[in-house]
Amino acid sequence: MRAVIFANGELQQPERLRALLRSDDYLISADGGLRHLRALDLRPQLLIGDLDSVSQPDVEWLAGGATEIRKFPAEKDFTDLELALRAARERGTESILLAAALGGRLDQTLANIALLRLPELSGMDVSLDDGLTEVRLITANLTIHGHTGDIVSLIPQASVVKGVRTHALQYPLNAETLSPGETRGISNVMLSAQAAVEIESGELLCVHLRRNNQ
Amino acid sequence: MRAVIFANGELQQPERLRALLRSDDYLISADGGLRHLRALDLRPQLLIGDLDSVSQPDVEWLAGGATEIRKFPAEKDFTDLELALRAARERGTESILLAAALGGRLDQTLANIALLRLPELSGMDVSLDDGLTEVRLITANLTIHGHTGDIVSLIPQASVVKGVRTHALQYPLNAETLSPGETRGISNVMLSAQAAVEIESGELLCVHLRRNNQ
Repeated sequence: MRAVIFANGELQQPERLRALLRSDDYLISADGGLRHLRALDLRPQLLIGDLDSVSQPDVEWLAGGATEIRKFPAEKDFTDLELALRAARERGTESILLAAALGGRLDQTLANIALLRLPELSGMDVSLDDGLTEVRLITANLTIHGHTGDIVSLIPQASVVKGVRTHALQYPLNAETLSPGETRGISNVMLSAQAAVEIESGELLCVHLRRNNQ
Repeated sequence: MRAVIFANGELQQPERLRALLRSDDYLISADGGLRHLRALDLRPQLLIGDLDSVSQPDVEWLAGGATEIRKFPAEKDFTDLELALRAARERGTESILLAAALGGRLDQTLANIALLRLPELSGMDVSLDDGLTEVRLITANLTIHGHTGDIVSLIPQASVVKGVRTHALQYPLNAETLSPGETRGISNVMLSAQAAVEIESGELLCVHLRRNNQ
């Protein structure tokens, strides 16, 4: 089962996100992310957070439905998004799609991307995705599903990444090393609907930009 | 002396950037960054890159002026931005402001932020700044110049950051540890026109959001 968590950031093209959803996804609203779910007319299974950023009309819209509401005090130890991630993990999900977590305030986008490196999420399949841009952390290997011509950028974030190999990308890397600050991994291009990256050691951020006209 | 490098990314409010400039700045256009300089009516001292993204009218606008032009082949080892950074360092600048490097394509923004960790720039005072958002890497200590109410976010990017102390921020950190994925450093607030952060070990990204109404 997969959890889809809606954060309270930007969601420029909600219909692009809808296209990623599956009927058996477990939908979680992290506090004010509820506005995106309502825009898509999707009632979540769970609303979680201190509920200081949901609007009253949005909460009333949930009334009579099956949404579980878990309200936490404002002075809590974790952000709403961290609470949502923990709730997803506790439910036993194998994968998490985090929506509306990119493209807003730069510091929040960077903090959301950094969540991929939380030890609690290690071993899980976690992506930040708004339907246009998909961000994942590669610790071993990753298959990228997209379209010919999509841009794929590989960015070493933490430390040196060794043994980087790419498949079905226009500018192949063959057991190469990428260091932080190096730009050789930027703006690669998918040669088919599927590409792959594998690494021997380190952690490599993968940013996949879907073409806007798909 | 300071070098100001104009990249070819977004520059939403050019006048906000102009307010940061000093009369003795050494202005470098990294290829198509020239369009931002022209919008500000500032002729750079140096135009560098493979010149595949400058417009002909912008280049003609330089004619008769004192701009040095260094054209590299398209199949070069470094990006235009890396060439500009190297040119700044070779000129002996102590500090570099990198403009128009934030807010465009997410992968390019992340790659530009990662440039802060290039070993060649270590020990130099380097910032990415578009006048609204300022990004710096803290390896020892940093004084932040802004206004009361500005947001300051501290994001551990590479590894665990130890001994984080803040001064004149609303939510103080006192010799604390921040790990990647932790969000405790996000959305702090400046209590005066000057704040400071120091760390004992690690590398901490600092994102300073200036209020838009200053």
